[in-house]
Amino acid sequence: MDWDRERRTGVPEAVLCERKSPEQIAAIVAAARAKNRKLFLTRLSAAAFAALAPDVAGLLDYDPLSATAILGAPNDAGTAAMKSPIGIVAAGTSDLPVAREALRALAFHGHVAPIIADVGVAGLWRLLEQIEQIRRFKVVIAVAGMEGALFSVLAGLVAAPVIAVPTSVGYGVATGGKVALYAALASCASGVVVVNIDNGFGAAAAALKMLGAARAQGTTPGP
Amino acid sequence: MDWDRERRTGVPEAVLCERKSPEQIAAIVAAARAKNRKLFLTRLSAAAFAALAPDVAGLLDYDPLSATAILGAPNDAGTAAMKSPIGIVAAGTSDLPVAREALRALAFHGHVAPIIADVGVAGLWRLLEQIEQIRRFKVVIAVAGMEGALFSVLAGLVAAPVIAVPTSVGYGVATGGKVALYAALASCASGVVVVNIDNGFGAAAAALKMLGAARAQGTTPGP
Amino acid sequence: MDWDRERRTGVPEAVLCERKSPEQIAAIVAAARAKNRKLFLTRLSAAAFAALAPDVAGLLDYDPLSATAILGAPNDAGTAAMKSPIGIVAAGTSDLPVAREALRALAFHGHVAPIIADVGVAGLWRLLEQIEQIRRFKVVIAVAGMEGALFSVLAGLVAAPVIAVPTSVGYGVATGGKVALYAALASCASGVVVVNIDNGFGAAAAALKMLGAARAQGTTPGP
Amino acid sequence: MDWDRERRTGVPEAVLCERKSPEQIAAIVAAARAKNRKLFLTRLSAAAFAALAPDVAGLLDYDPLSATAILGAPNDAGTAAMKSPIGIVAAGTSDLPVAREALRALAFHGHVAPIIADVGVAGLWRLLEQIEQIRRFKVVIAVAGMEGALFSVLAGLVAAPVIAVPTSVGYGVATGGKVALYAALASCASGVVVVNIDNGFGAAAAALKMLGAARAQGTTPGP
Amino acid sequence: MDWDRERRTGVPEAVLCERKSPEQIAAIVAAARAKNRKLFLTRLSAAAFAALAPDVAGLLDYDPLSATAILGAPNDAGTAAMKSPIGIVAAGTSDLPVAREALRALAFHGHVAPIIADVGVAGLWRLLEQIEQIRRFKVVIAVAGMEGALFSVLAGLVAAPVIAVPTSVGYGVATGGKVALYAALASCASGVVVVNIDNGFGAAAAALKMLGAARAQGTTPGP
Amino acid sequence: MDWDRERRTGVPEAVLCERKSPEQIAAIVAAARAKNRKLFLTRLSAAAFAALAPDVAGLLDYDPLSATAILGAPNDAGTAAMKSPIGIVAAGTSDLPVAREALRALAFHGHVAPIIADVGVAGLWRLLEQIEQIRRFKVVIAVAGMEGALFSVLAGLVAAPVIAVPTSVGYGVATGGKVALYAALASCASGVVVVNIDNGFGAAAAALKMLGAARAQGTTPGP
Amino acid sequence: MDWDRERRTGVPEAVLCERKSPEQIAAIVAAARAKNRKLFLTRLSAAAFAALAPDVAGLLDYDPLSATAILGAPNDAGTAAMKSPIGIVAAGTSDLPVAREALRALAFHGHVAPIIADVGVAGLWRLLEQIEQIRRFKVVIAVAGMEGALFSVLAGLVAAPVIAVPTSVGYGVATGGKVALYAALASCASGVVVVNIDNGFGAAAAALKMLGAARAQGTTPGP
Amino acid sequence: MDWDRERRTGVPEAVLCERKSPEQIAAIVAAARAKNRKLFLTRLSAAAFAALAPDVAGLLDYDPLSATAILGAPNDAGTAAMKSPIGIVAAGTSDLPVAREALRALAFHGHVAPIIADVGVAGLWRLLEQIEQIRRFKVVIAVAGMEGALFSVLAGLVAAPVIAVPTSVGYGVATGGKVALYAALASCASGVVVVNIDNGFGAAAAALKMLGAARAQGTTPGP
Repeated sequence: MDWDRERRTGVPEAVLCERKSPEQIAAIVAAARAKNRKLFLTRLSAAAFAALAPDVAGLLDYDPLSATAILGAPNDAGTAAMKSPIGIVAAGTSDLPVAREALRALAFHGHVAPIIADVGVAGLWRLLEQIEQIRRFKVVIAVAGMEGALFSVLAGLVAAPVIAVPTSVGYGVATGGKVALYAALASCASGVVVVNIDNGFGAAAAALKMLGAARAQGTTPGP
Repeated sequence: MDWDRERRTGVPEAVLCERKSPEQIAAIVAAARAKNRKLFLTRLSAAAFAALAPDVAGLLDYDPLSATAILGAPNDAGTAAMKSPIGIVAAGTSDLPVAREALRALAFHGHVAPIIADVGVAGLWRLLEQIEQIRRFKVVIAVAGMEGALFSVLAGLVAAPVIAVPTSVGYGVATGGKVALYAALASCASGVVVVNIDNGFGAAAAALKMLGAARAQGTTPGP
Repeated sequence: MDWDRERRTGVPEAVLCERKSPEQIAAIVAAARAKNRKLFLTRLSAAAFAALAPDVAGLLDYDPLSATAILGAPNDAGTAAMKSPIGIVAAGTSDLPVAREALRALAFHGHVAPIIADVGVAGLWRLLEQIEQIRRFKVVIAVAGMEGALFSVLAGLVAAPVIAVPTSVGYGVATGGKVALYAALASCASGVVVVNIDNGFGAAAAALKMLGAARAQGTTPGP
Repeated sequence: MDWDRERRTGVPEAVLCERKSPEQIAAIVAAARAKNRKLFLTRLSAAAFAALAPDVAGLLDYDPLSATAILGAPNDAGTAAMKSPIGIVAAGTSDLPVAREALRALAFHGHVAPIIADVGVAGLWRLLEQIEQIRRFKVVIAVAGMEGALFSVLAGLVAAPVIAVPTSVGYGVATGGKVALYAALASCASGVVVVNIDNGFGAAAAALKMLGAARAQGTTPGP
Repeated sequence: MDWDRERRTGVPEAVLCERKSPEQIAAIVAAARAKNRKLFLTRLSAAAFAALAPDVAGLLDYDPLSATAILGAPNDAGTAAMKSPIGIVAAGTSDLPVAREALRALAFHGHVAPIIADVGVAGLWRLLEQIEQIRRFKVVIAVAGMEGALFSVLAGLVAAPVIAVPTSVGYGVATGGKVALYAALASCASGVVVVNIDNGFGAAAAALKMLGAARAQGTTPGP
Repeated sequence: MDWDRERRTGVPEAVLCERKSPEQIAAIVAAARAKNRKLFLTRLSAAAFAALAPDVAGLLDYDPLSATAILGAPNDAGTAAMKSPIGIVAAGTSDLPVAREALRALAFHGHVAPIIADVGVAGLWRLLEQIEQIRRFKVVIAVAGMEGALFSVLAGLVAAPVIAVPTSVGYGVATGGKVALYAALASCASGVVVVNIDNGFGAAAAALKMLGAARAQGTTPGP
Repeated sequence: MDWDRERRTGVPEAVLCERKSPEQIAAIVAAARAKNRKLFLTRLSAAAFAALAPDVAGLLDYDPLSATAILGAPNDAGTAAMKSPIGIVAAGTSDLPVAREALRALAFHGHVAPIIADVGVAGLWRLLEQIEQIRRFKVVIAVAGMEGALFSVLAGLVAAPVIAVPTSVGYGVATGGKVALYAALASCASGVVVVNIDNGFGAAAAALKMLGAARAQGTTPGP
Repeated sequence: MDWDRERRTGVPEAVLCERKSPEQIAAIVAAARAKNRKLFLTRLSAAAFAALAPDVAGLLDYDPLSATAILGAPNDAGTAAMKSPIGIVAAGTSDLPVAREALRALAFHGHVAPIIADVGVAGLWRLLEQIEQIRRFKVVIAVAGMEGALFSVLAGLVAAPVIAVPTSVGYGVATGGKVALYAALASCASGVVVVNIDNGFGAAAAALKMLGAARAQGTTPGP
C-alpha cells in the first residue's frame, strides 16, 4: 500500500480485492492496523468476504450490495444527506450497486450523500420532478448504464460539474458498459467528466477533490 | 435496377451514387426514362452532380444539402406539412443533411413532412416546447449524432413509433456515428427502431411502410 | 417503475430481471399488485424463477423457453393467430427463445401472433413456400442469428415493415450477435428497421406502436 | 519476385502496386521481360498507370475498372465463357471492379469466365431466374458488399463450392466491407469459403487451384 | 431440418447442438430415423451427450474430443487414409478437436482422411519433413490457432487449394481466434480460402464440394 | 443556439464549426450580435476561416493554432496566469492545439490560465521540476496523446482534480487517440476525470464548473 | 514437442497446458523423461495440477501462484538475485502471478532474478526510491496492467532494454489487458519492446536471448 | 527536446515531424545547433521537407524513402554492414520504407546494418537460402505487414532476439497493420518482441539497447 498517497493527493489508495486471495487481504488489513490506518476495500464479493478468516472479517464494515468493506470508523465531516454538497443520481435499480460504491466511499470520508434513484430519461418526468433538489448539489455523480442518455440530459439542466459513471448494465450492444461510456464522452452538453465503467470509488474520489478545490478556492480572493 | 421492387414491397429501389461513374448514372437515368419510371438518387455529391453531362443533369431535381436528386415529378398524396402523418425531428444543424434526405425521399412519394430542428437534449426545454406538436405525428423519424440521447428522451414521450437515424456527426469516440447508433439500439425506452448511420432514405422507406400497414389495417376490422 | 409510461407511450415498461435479486422482484410485483397493474418480466431465468418465494412465483405465468413472466391476465384484443396483423418469422430452432419473447409480449397486449419457424435462407424453398402467408401480415418481426441473411431476403419480398431482431446465436465471428445486427442495418433492402440483439420485447413494442400508427391513421382521411 | 512460385503452387505471384513507385513497377516489368515471364498487376489506379513511363505503359494491357494490368499474352486454355467451369456472380454494379479483377486474373490463365451481375437478394427473382445457369459452374466466385446475404442464399442453391469475395461497398456499419466478410464466414449454408475483402485475384487463384484438384482428381480412380 | 439440402448442394445440413435441449436433439434424431436419414451432430459436449436419454444416446456414434456424433453408418467411398485426396494438417495438439471435427465430417461421407499433426511453423523442419506427403493431397485442410502462420507457409509450398480453419486456441490478443482468422484472410500466399473459427465441419463440406467440382470436371473435356 | 444554456448551466454552448457552411456560421454570428451575445467557435480551420465573408471574419478574434474564434470581448474575472486557479499541463508540442483550445475557452470566461508544456513522462525530470508550481493550481487540465501516461503520474502527485484530455496525437495503435483515452479511464491513480478526445473546450467548461462548485462551496459552512 | 528447438533458438518450447487433458500432459512428461529432457509447463491451474495422476504430479516442481511446473532440475548458471543481469519490475500485487511466471522461466535456465514489486506510477516515489537498483540490470522485464504507465516512466529512466509484459489486470475499459498492451506499444519512450498479454514466459525467453546477444557480443571486438 | 535523455537511456529522443509546422521544425533544428547536438527526425514527408526554409533543409541529410532526416554527422562505431551485429530482414518491397527508417536510425548511431529483403514466407526458399547469414546477427529486426507470418518462422530458426516491426502494408482486414502486429504478439515462437506499427526507429533504439546490454554484460563475469 502507498500509505503516503492521501497526504500527497488528498485521497487514500483503495484496495481492489478482485484478484486477491484471502491471505493477501488479511495481510493488507494487518498492515493497516499496524500503522493505525483506515482502509477502503472495493470489489469484495460476498463469496470473497465469506472466505476471509473470522477475525479479519470481524474488523470490517461490509456492504454486500456495493461489495465494499471499510476498516476503521469513517471520518466525520459534519454533513448530513440533507445538506450534502455531493449528490448521487442513478438511472435505474440495476445501477444501485455502483451508486452505492460511491456513497460508501464518500461515507468513508465523512460525507453522507443521498442517492436519487430511478430517474432514467425514458420516464423524463421522474427526473424533472427532482431537478430542483439536484440543482442544489455542488457536485453531481450520475450513474447510468444502457445508452447513458441521463448524462446529457442532466448536464444540460444543472450548473454543477457532472461526474458520469457508466455502468456495465445492459445486453446486446450495451454489454459491458461501453455504450454508456461513449455516450458520456460524446455528450453534447459540456461539463460532463467521465470515469471508468462501474468505478463508483473513482467518482467519489474526484468529487472530493473538486470540493477540495472549492474549499481551497474559498480561502482565496477567488477566481 | 430492380424495376419490380416497388410492386413487391411498396418502395422502389434508390440509386446509391457514391461509387458510380457519370456514365453509369447516365445509363440508369436513360433506362428509367425508357421505362417511364421515376428515380430517387442518393449520395450524389455536388462534385458528382457537376460531372454529369448537362442533358442528364437537366433532367434532375437536385438538392445539394442532402446530396439527392429526383427524376420525374413526385407523387401527390394530397398531404401538406401541416397535417403530415410523418414528422422529422433533428437534434442539431449538422444533422440537417440526413434529415433532408428523409424529407426528400418522403416528398418523392408525395408526403410533405416537416423538420423540427435544433431540439437536442442538452437544451431540453427546446424539445419540450415542441413536444405537443411532435405527439401529433403517427410516425416520428428522429435524426441525431454525437451521443444520440434524443432517441431515448423522445421515445419516452410519444406513442408513435420512433425511427432512429444515427448520423456520423461527432468527433473523438463519436467519429463515424457508432455511438449514436448503439445508443439508439440500447435505448431504455421501448418502441425505438433503428436504421443504418446516415440512412435518411431507409428511414423514409420504413415510415412509408408503417403508414401502409396502418392504411391496410384501416380497412380490416383491426387489432 | 414508471407506471405512467403506458399512458404516455402506449406501451408499459418491462421489468428486466437479469440483475435483480428475488427480493427486488418481489417488491416490484407487490407494488404492481398494490396499484392493480399488470407486469411483463423479461430475462427471468429458470433458476431465478425458482429462487422466488412461492407466493410470488404463484402469481406469475412463467414461460421457461423465453424466460418471461406475466402478472395479471393479458388484454383481449379479439385477434387470433389466424388473422393476426403481426407475424413472427424465425430463421432456426435456436432463435425460438427470442421469437417467443416477442410472442409473449404481444400476448400480454392481447395479440395472438403466430411464429413461422425454420425458414433460414440456406433452405430458401422453405421460406418461399410460406411467403404468401407472411405477405398477409401488416407488420413482420424477423428473428435470426448467424449471418442474418433472412432480413434482406424477407424485406425484398414483402410490403410490410420488417422489424429485425438479431439474436446472439452463432460462434466464431458470429459470437454475441453483432454480425446479424450489422447485416440487418446494412441491408440492401429498404424497409428493415432494427432493435437490439435478443430484444424480442422491444420488437413487440415497436410492432404495437406501428399498429397504433395504423389505427390512428385509419381514423383520418389518410396519407 | 518469387519467379518460382508458379511451379510450386500452380499460381504465379501477383504484383500489388498500391505502394509501389513508377520506378519500382518499371523495374519489376523489366525483370519479367528479361526472364521472359508474364505478369499480373493489381491495384494499379488510373493515376498510377498514367504515371508510368510510356515505354512501360505501352507493354501493358490495362483495365481501368478493375485497376489491373497484364504483361504478356494470356494463356489459352481453350475455354469460352459459354462453357467456362468457373462463374462469377456479382450482387450489384458497385461490386463490378472486384468481379472484374477476378475475371482478368482468370483470363490471365486462359479462362474466359462470365460475370452474372445485379443478382442481389433484395431482388430475389433476378437471382432465381439465373440459378440454372449458375448451377452449371463447377466453381462459383460470389462478389458482394453491404450485408453479404448473397453468399448464404447462393450456397444453399448450388452444389459447387462458393468462393465469397466480400467487397468494401457500403456505408455506416458496412464501411470497409467487414459486415459482408463476417456474413460470409458466419453463413448458415456450408460450402462457403472466403477470401480477403476486395481480393478478386485471390478468389481467381483459389478457383484455379480447385479446378486443378478436380483435374488431378480426374486422372485417379477418384473418390 | 432441411432434408432436401443434400440433394441441392451435395452436403447435408449439420445439427449444431450448442443451444439445443436434450428433448430437441431427441426430436431431431427421431425425425431422421422416421425418414431413414443419417445425421451429423456438432458441438455436442460430453455433458450434453450424457444428458441424452439412453435410447437416443445408444443410436449415436459419439466422439468426445471433437464433440461430434453420427447417426447411421457412414458412406463408403472406398478410400483409405493412405490415398485420401483430402489431407488435414494441424499446427498443434490443442488444434486437434477442430481437426477431428473435420475428420469425422469427412468420414460421415465415406472419406478416411489422415491428420498430419504438430507441424507448427515455429518448428519449421517438422513441416518440411512431411511436405512431400502433404503435396500429394488434392485438397488440404489446415487447422491452426495463435498467429496462424501455418496457412501462409503451407500455401506457398503446395499446389492444392488450402482451406484454412482458424481455431480459438490462444490467449491475450489471440483469445477467440481472430488473429488466426485475419492472418488466413491476409495471407500473402494466394490460394488460401477461409472458414469460420473452429468450423471443422464447414471445411470438410467445402473440401467435398471441391472434390465434387473435380469429379464433375473429370467428365468434361476439361478446362 | 440554446441562448439560455449559460443561465441554466453556467457555461454557454460552443459553436462546433466542423460541418457548417460559411453561410451557416455567418447566420449564427448575426443572431448572436442581434441578441448582444458573445460566442465561442471551435474547430474552425484556417481554410474555413478564410472562406468567411470579410465582414464576418472581421468581427472574430481568430487563433489558427487552436482553430478557435471568439466574438465579443472576453469576460474579465480579474485573474492573471500567475495566480490562475486553473493550470494546463501538456505532454508535448503536438498537444498544443488542444491545450490552446482549453486556454482560449478559459480566456473567453476571463481566466488567463498558463500552459506548462513538454512535460511528458519519458523525460520525468522535466515534470518533477515543475511539480511544485502545478501543485498550486486548484484544478489541473492535463493534455496528452500517445500512451497517455502523464495522466496517472500527475494524478499521483497533486491534490487537485485532474481533467484528462486525450489527444489524437499518435500513430499505429495510437492513431485517433483511443489509447490515451483508455489510459486515462483506467488510471490506477484516483481523481482523474476524462473528456472526449481533443475536447479542450469541454475540459475548460468542466474546470469552470468545478471552480463554481468551489465558489458556491466557499459561501456555505462547507463540507 | 519440438525437442530440437533449444538447439536452434537457445530456448526450449514451453508446454501450454490450458487446453490439454491430464492424459495429454502425462504423455508429454513421459516423452520428456524418455528423452532425458527438462520441461517447463505454463498455465497449469491448481485444479489441473490436482487432476494429474500422483506419479506424474510427483515429478513436477509446481508453483500455484504462477501456475507453472518444472520437470527436472534447473540449470545452474551461477548467478544469484543479488547480481542478476535480469530484473523483474511489477506494478502491483495483482501482477505478481505473471511476474512470477517470468521468474520461474528464468530459474528454469539457471537465473535467479529478483522481483521489485509495488512500484506503480501512482505512487511515483516508490519507483524512484528503487531506480538506482533497477538501473543496474542489463535487461528489465516490466509487468503492469491497468493503464500500463509504468512502461514509459521506466524506459525513460534506464539504459537497459525494457520488455513490457502487459497483464490482464483491470476492469471496465481495461478488461483483458489491451489498454496496458497498447500503452506499451505507443510508449513515447523508445527502447520498450512488448510481448503478449500475461506472457511472462515469453518475456523471460526474450531476456535470455538478449543476454545471449550480449554474450556473443562480448566475444567479438564489439559494436 | 529532452536533451538529457541520451545520457539517461543511451538513446536520444527522435523528432516526430508528422504534426509539426516548418517553423516548429526550424526552431528545433536551431536549438540543436545552439547546443551542438545531433538530431534524428522521423515522418518528415517529401512535401514537409520541401516546405522547410532552404537554410534549414540545407543542414539536413534527407532520405525520401524512409522520410527521415539527420542533422550532424553520424557516430562512427567502426562497424560495416558485412560484420554488423544487427541485421534487418524485410518481407517485401512495400516494407522497405520502414526497414530503412531502422537502417537510418542505426546509421545515426554509427551502425551500418544490412537489409535482407524479399524473404516473405510465401516464398519460403528465399528465406531459407539466406538463413545462415541471418543467423550470424546478434539482434534481428524483422519488418513485415499483411499477415506477419515472417516473425514466427524467423524466430523459430535463429537464436538471436527478434524485434518485430509490423507495417501498415495491407488491405481489407490487414489495413493499418493490426493483423501483423497481433501475429507478432501471438507468435508461437518465443523470443519475439514487438514495437508499434511502422516504428522502425523504435526497433533500432531497442536493438541498440540490447547491444548495450551485451556490451555491459561483456565486462562483467556474467551469466
